[in-house]
Amino acid sequence: MNNGILIILSGPSGSGKDTVLNELVKNREDIKISVSMTTREKRQDEIDGYHYYFVDRDYFERKISEDKMLEYAEYADNYYGTPKAPVDEMLSNGKAVILKIEVQGAEKIRKLYSDVISIFLMPPSMRVLEERLRARNTEDEETINHRLVIAREEMKKAPEYDYVVINDTVENAVAGIETIIKSERLKTARNKKKISEVINNV
Amino acid sequence: MNNGILIILSGPSGSGKDTVLNELVKNREDIKISVSMTTREKRQDEIDGYHYYFVDRDYFERKISEDKMLEYAEYADNYYGTPKAPVDEMLSNGKAVILKIEVQGAEKIRKLYSDVISIFLMPPSMRVLEERLRARNTEDEETINHRLVIAREEMKKAPEYDYVVINDTVENAVAGIETIIKSERLKTARNKKKISEVINNV
Repeated sequence: MNNGILIILSGPSGSGKDTVLNELVKNREDIKISVSMTTREKRQDEIDGYHYYFVDRDYFERKISEDKMLEYAEYADNYYGTPKAPVDEMLSNGKAVILKIEVQGAEKIRKLYSDVISIFLMPPSMRVLEERLRARNTEDEETINHRLVIAREEMKKAPEYDYVVINDTVENAVAGIETIIKSERLKTARNKKKISEVINNV
Repeated sequence: MNNGILIILSGPSGSGKDTVLNELVKNREDIKISVSMTTREKRQDEIDGYHYYFVDRDYFERKISEDKMLEYAEYADNYYGTPKAPVDEMLSNGKAVILKIEVQGAEKIRKLYSDVISIFLMPPSMRVLEERLRARNTEDEETINHRLVIAREEMKKAPEYDYVVINDTVENAVAGIETIIKSERLKTARNKKKISEVINNV
């Protein structure tokens, strides 16, 4: 039986998804982050199998046609998606598996998996989000303004998620996600076997 | 707006509801236990307004006819029930309000309040439950056996609850309920105002 918990985490660019997730899974084995697959070129500082599985278009399209992708999308001529097999394996080992995913991908997965848990990571304010985007120091004014417009649109989708975690500090955001996972593990739907064991054993 | 959380807690006799709840609310103001109203006679060690609100039948029946009871039932010629007013007041002050309630009462409240959270407190095993009932040293063999039969029937209703908390130790059970409450406070449905503030303020 599958005792794992599938979790979608979304949030606008600058909400701090990577920082929070890296801190969350540090020194623990019960929560895993799903690694996406992409056809885009590997950047120098990226590690295959950690940041992404880097594959070619033929391979990616074969996986799509074999129905081996949980979800996928094409941006700027590159495929990005979540391979099913590693997620299923981690779930069958009882792990909480987090998919870091765009708002659109989240909608697809929610339709496919009724028992998926979805979490929206919010910045504490638009001002803080802007500061974070500027602090990266890698983007021009136009790009930053564009990201802020998109962020606001994405945040309007937050009410479609089950939970909202405000990333005011990394510690608070990590604690929030941990609390949600612990609490979800107490849902009766995930404990039917345990309940019937208590009732039927003397 | 009502930011509180209404919580039902049920569990068989001997599951440790009182011990766990007393420990849960110790030294904190954000979680409150609803006090039931009853027409049964006050025992010597009981405190009016703490263990129960002790009232007479006329008063109780007037409250029923005025629709001032959240739920009520009659056992052994005495009324037991939950008055609405204190619960509503605590909820409007943002408290998590716990109703310690029988399985039947829980079903009624779940129908009336769609956003109520329900928690079933389970003993870790029937054997432990039996030990706890015997340790009370106040009941004869027949009564204990009868309680065990009823407990098993009640526990079959556990899957109708949202969450199940196993009371293996008081600390674990308290931590479980705290986790559920913290997590419920992160539900998007309870944070719509906060979400729109982030989106709309710069």
